[in-house]
Amino acid sequence: MSNLWQVHTDKFINEKESIMRNGNVYQIANGYMGYRGTLDEFRPDELVGVTLSGIYDQVGEAWREPVNAPNGGFTKVTLDGMEISALSTKITEHRQSLNLENAVFERETGFESRGKILKIKSARFLSADLPHLGVIKYSFTVDKAATVKISTGIDYNIWDLNGPHLLKLTPKQKDGALLVHGVTGETSKRVAVAEAIDVHLGTEVHEDKDKKNLRVIHFDAEAGKTYTFYKYFAVFTDNDPVKTSVSEAAIKTVREAKACGYDECLSRHNAQWAKKWEYCDVKIGGDDDAQLALRYSIFQLLIVAPVSGSANSIPARALSGQVYKGAIFWDTEMFMFPFFLYTYPEKAVELMRYRIKTLNGARRKAKTEGVGYRGAFYAWESQESGDDACTYFNIGDPFTKRELRTHFRDKQVHISGDIAIAMWEYFKTTDDDSLLLEGGAEVILECARFFYSYAYFKKDKNRYEILDVVGPDEYHERVNNNAFTSMVAKATFEIANAAVKYLKYKHPDKLKALVNKIDIAGELPSFVEAADLLYVPQPDEKTGVIEQFDAYYKLQETTVEALKARMVHPNEYLGAGQGLAVPTKVIKQADVVMMLNLFKDRYSAEIKKANWEYYEPRTEHGSSLSACAYAMVAADIGKLDWAYTYFLKTAKIDIEAKYKVYVGTIFMGGSHPAANGGAWMTAVFGFGGVKADGEQVAINPRLYKKWKYLQFAMVYKGDRFKIKITKHDVAIITDISNKHNHTFIVSGKSVNCEPGKHSLIRYR
Amino acid sequence: MSNLWQVHTDKFINEKESIMRNGNVYQIANGYMGYRGTLDEFRPDELVGVTLSGIYDQVGEAWREPVNAPNGGFTKVTLDGMEISALSTKITEHRQSLNLENAVFERETGFESRGKILKIKSARFLSADLPHLGVIKYSFTVDKAATVKISTGIDYNIWDLNGPHLLKLTPKQKDGALLVHGVTGETSKRVAVAEAIDVHLGTEVHEDKDKKNLRVIHFDAEAGKTYTFYKYFAVFTDNDPVKTSVSEAAIKTVREAKACGYDECLSRHNAQWAKKWEYCDVKIGGDDDAQLALRYSIFQLLIVAPVSGSANSIPARALSGQVYKGAIFWDTEMFMFPFFLYTYPEKAVELMRYRIKTLNGARRKAKTEGVGYRGAFYAWESQESGDDACTYFNIGDPFTKRELRTHFRDKQVHISGDIAIAMWEYFKTTDDDSLLLEGGAEVILECARFFYSYAYFKKDKNRYEILDVVGPDEYHERVNNNAFTSMVAKATFEIANAAVKYLKYKHPDKLKALVNKIDIAGELPSFVEAADLLYVPQPDEKTGVIEQFDAYYKLQETTVEALKARMVHPNEYLGAGQGLAVPTKVIKQADVVMMLNLFKDRYSAEIKKANWEYYEPRTEHGSSLSACAYAMVAADIGKLDWAYTYFLKTAKIDIEAKYKVYVGTIFMGGSHPAANGGAWMTAVFGFGGVKADGEQVAINPRLYKKWKYLQFAMVYKGDRFKIKITKHDVAIITDISNKHNHTFIVSGKSVNCEPGKHSLIRYR
Repeated sequence: MSNLWQVHTDKFINEKESIMRNGNVYQIANGYMGYRGTLDEFRPDELVGVTLSGIYDQVGEAWREPVNAPNGGFTKVTLDGMEISALSTKITEHRQSLNLENAVFERETGFESRGKILKIKSARFLSADLPHLGVIKYSFTVDKAATVKISTGIDYNIWDLNGPHLLKLTPKQKDGALLVHGVTGETSKRVAVAEAIDVHLGTEVHEDKDKKNLRVIHFDAEAGKTYTFYKYFAVFTDNDPVKTSVSEAAIKTVREAKACGYDECLSRHNAQWAKKWEYCDVKIGGDDDAQLALRYSIFQLLIVAPVSGSANSIPARALSGQVYKGAIFWDTEMFMFPFFLYTYPEKAVELMRYRIKTLNGARRKAKTEGVGYRGAFYAWESQESGDDACTYFNIGDPFTKRELRTHFRDKQVHISGDIAIAMWEYFKTTDDDSLLLEGGAEVILECARFFYSYAYFKKDKNRYEILDVVGPDEYHERVNNNAFTSMVAKATFEIANAAVKYLKYKHPDKLKALVNKIDIAGELPSFVEAADLLYVPQPDEKTGVIEQFDAYYKLQETTVEALKARMVHPNEYLGAGQGLAVPTKVIKQADVVMMLNLFKDRYSAEIKKANWEYYEPRTEHGSSLSACAYAMVAADIGKLDWAYTYFLKTAKIDIEAKYKVYVGTIFMGGSHPAANGGAWMTAVFGFGGVKADGEQVAINPRLYKKWKYLQFAMVYKGDRFKIKITKHDVAIITDISNKHNHTFIVSGKSVNCEPGKHSLIRYR
Repeated sequence: MSNLWQVHTDKFINEKESIMRNGNVYQIANGYMGYRGTLDEFRPDELVGVTLSGIYDQVGEAWREPVNAPNGGFTKVTLDGMEISALSTKITEHRQSLNLENAVFERETGFESRGKILKIKSARFLSADLPHLGVIKYSFTVDKAATVKISTGIDYNIWDLNGPHLLKLTPKQKDGALLVHGVTGETSKRVAVAEAIDVHLGTEVHEDKDKKNLRVIHFDAEAGKTYTFYKYFAVFTDNDPVKTSVSEAAIKTVREAKACGYDECLSRHNAQWAKKWEYCDVKIGGDDDAQLALRYSIFQLLIVAPVSGSANSIPARALSGQVYKGAIFWDTEMFMFPFFLYTYPEKAVELMRYRIKTLNGARRKAKTEGVGYRGAFYAWESQESGDDACTYFNIGDPFTKRELRTHFRDKQVHISGDIAIAMWEYFKTTDDDSLLLEGGAEVILECARFFYSYAYFKKDKNRYEILDVVGPDEYHERVNNNAFTSMVAKATFEIANAAVKYLKYKHPDKLKALVNKIDIAGELPSFVEAADLLYVPQPDEKTGVIEQFDAYYKLQETTVEALKARMVHPNEYLGAGQGLAVPTKVIKQADVVMMLNLFKDRYSAEIKKANWEYYEPRTEHGSSLSACAYAMVAADIGKLDWAYTYFLKTAKIDIEAKYKVYVGTIFMGGSHPAANGGAWMTAVFGFGGVKADGEQVAINPRLYKKWKYLQFAMVYKGDRFKIKITKHDVAIITDISNKHNHTFIVSGKSVNCEPGKHSLIRYR
């Protein structure tokens, strides 16, 4: 297996910090659940976590967060009565790896205890074929004959940030399977974990001690012989459409998996992974560093893609734990969605279905926020119902020890537009209007309605304005006419108008039904007017710079370094009303530059360049979302060295895991799927120069000098393409099963892409 | 002299705090300058201050503030070679008093030094007849023969908060007068202080030492004999319309005063004071405590009324020092102006002329604040040019030691409306349209223009809204639809429309000229529409309560006490974005209640009662402006005990001087003329129940139970009235010199008030 398909380490560092970071880097997931990259014998103290998608719970006034399941993968070994663990036993050798090809985590550790060497080797995966299922192959060898005790089963000591979420945890045995069953405290949702084992080592004794439902097997191990057993665990919750009880479903799943056997389970799993990679991988020739980082980023997205039919989405820290409340942010639509849309559209659909599912939550938020608005104001931090999990006070102030009031929740209104844009992008890029008809159009109209309800008209300037918002740059709250937000709002009105136009032409009865259902006929003309008259800050005639928001130019000029030098407490927050950045031009993350990327068709290269150069030195990049925006616009304007620098920054975030894991006392570790999505976008849209609209696909390659080639696949209007960009050529392989002819424009040259055709276009 | 016409003390407490507070309580002033109530021998350390009206200076980045003049009233005495001072010599007796009848400050102190007793007695006044002039009579007696040295002249050590403001201070002697001349650093304005003395004690030697320009007289004093001399000092600045130099003018003034003599100077001064009191005094029968406090409050207003023709106004801390930058706030129009309008209209004119004079400053502020507005946005802290002296960062944060950003300057837009309202009140109450013609109408139109430029239209609600403001309750910044502010803006549009209508009818050519001058013809229809469609929060149908601003009801419910208990630092500010009060319903000062008082005609007693009862327990009264609003509305709705409580609170603020004098390290001591004006308003408008509009005067007496009578005078449409309210009757004495008949409505009964007529109306 090539080094470009795995991450691995040969060291085990017995420190909390290292264990925690490895838990992130080596995590596996299958969209249904995530399993942190911890070792078999680890416990909650090592942040073992089986985080479930789409099921949440709140304890008292603490943050509402996803539920972690009991750990069905637990195994510990005793050698001649001594408990063996990486935490306490002398380690003679250690290797752990994560295979990106199929998301199999392996560990191999040699232990020395009282002169004997025990080697443990295990491999685990969460089935990509059967989302409830986890499978483990566990082997061990002793160098001298010894008495070995294997304790394996379900550890229902659960690591929670703000738990406990599972109450009435009950261990059971049934039909040879172990079971732990619990219910969430807030909404009494049942969660069951079952475990079955395929083992032939000796008599099994049941033990339930210290919140562990275990099988214990004592036996005498011969020297040099390798003993192996297979574990199957399954998780079910009341969110799953099960006919029987969640416990029965879990037991049935592990029994069937056991009957099926490890090899077959793995083979089915691998088959799914092969399909994923076929259309999702991106190859970079001649730059292994970038190749691995990018592939790891794509891997991170693939493991957390929601289960088909779940209408779940991807949280900001994916399934790597309960950080950020397991909430879905704008990250998903703006940073992850494009990857799925162009490679794996059935997952893009799921992300959008999540927003359709939570439309009523967004309506509730609109009604209750501020003076009350009409339409859909999506949650800044969205969980299963779409009600906002974001609190009004949420950043610890080290000076007063109080929580600071922020306006993330009530003023970051662009979220609704971000969703409308993604919804429309799906339709434009796929030509599939089913999503519009099953609720997407309703989402779009309700988002436009929200913006209209939020907007004011300035009579003496004959324009609408979007006032009092927080843009992506969260250091400047409650600003007026934020370019990004206003442009997103304008686009939302345009999309609403286009959706109405399309439905009127194509599905007039369904449009009529929708308009009646949400009683919006009288408001539609306003959307047309607003699309026309909504003010968006324009580039300065001389400098080309777009003012981020009203009177931004009047703010204090300083540098990020000078600003940070003024900090008197290392944890002081730079925003939130009185933060150090507030009176200055220093911004948290790409804002105007983010807009120039999102609406790249509407601005010239000169404008992009002027703004990139103006804002880049003023950007702190205090958010992991920032780098890719700067990378993509840099690529767009030919600043390829800068594009590459920011590309590596976004692509390496999770593989290097050098990010801050604690902010104050709050644990913030975990993966960054938005930055991962940003890495893919920078590769394909930035360096690849791919830009599709409803009409055609343009490719304007901007291959980085170090790269021999860039190879990727994409789906467009349901048809598939493989594209390879070299220094001088673009090769397009059109899938033989494609249904339509397509026109690609490669550096201005029109290329007819018929099904099965291979085209080679010289672009320079 | 009755105790109800003076404040006095028989103690001298040799502590900085006491000396400072007495400096405030015993201050004298004459509109041109203030002289703090310090003793003759005191120096800058005792906060001796001669604060000038309308002349300002800034040193570096420090606060711009009024200029203090050298102290021409300085005298010290040496007894047998020992310097005598209340600060260092044993005091055998002490009495100091301030005569409210004529603003004469007197001190009488017995000192014991080496077995001898020296008694000093002095009296001083700042001439109400000749504003540049100060006059002192100084006497002393020894009980045993002794050698006495008198050092008297000009001390040009100057107490400054953010000085030094006078540079190149030069002492001179000329024609028997002493002179100190200096220039301000910022704008090189010359300031001269001259002193002349009428003395017959012995040979005078000149001395200039330690920044004191002095005459020194040694002589042998006989036992038991009283020696007296008279000092005259005068201050002139480049702000004064002098034909010669400021030095010559000052010397000429003191020489003429000396020639005139002490008695004649005093007599002319007293004559002016008699006139002032004739129409300004308010008598309260049967409540000496209230009587003295109210009279003292009126006295405070009379001493600082601007010199006629100066177009100066009254700063928030009057002439008691440089506190609050000597700046003019909304305090003047909303709290002091009514007193002058109803008792001393020629001073009300001066206050309004100040706003006409500073109109260009208000225009500059409108243009440069935020995105730039049209019209006149008056300074929150206004000095001589009308540019804003208020800084954006101005409250020390004890946690970070940084200055907090507040929005007093940029968002407290009601200031422009407050001024327009006062301007129009002047016209309505006096029938004198000269002020409108000399710039008042221009001010009104520019204020309306500003509000129009600031307002947004909400199309889906068909209304204008005033967004993003700070109302009187400064703890809640950047709120939308603040009832007070919106009502003030609406009134401004109404006033602009009424002014246009009046001028069109009465002075069509002047209207035309004005409309052309400021190019406003095209905007006038907008003002009519805005007056009609501007949204002002209305009383709740069930509770009658008016929501202070959008979503105020959603704020946390707590009490002032509970809130203060959460403070972790005694000096932490409760507002400014992250202050403790911000997320709660606790307000700094009357806001809705202030509006109900200002627009008392527009709301029923039920609405006033509902709001008074709702907001009163939620009000911290963190501003001295708050109490009188609660007092007046309490009187209006018949809660007379509450009205009385708040009346005493506002009336006693300066006579008791218990206010906080330091906020952090910032000296905040000084008088509170707005609260003083509030005391007068509570007496006459509140308990007296006087309400005049353009048509008639209504009197609805609400005499407090403890009071036998309430007697006051008023001017209405240029005619004068004396009114005495007893338990059952209202007596109205119409001045014989009045020019018109007027209709008074006393508790619903119409009374015809012809010139010279005495009416007695039984009201219950």
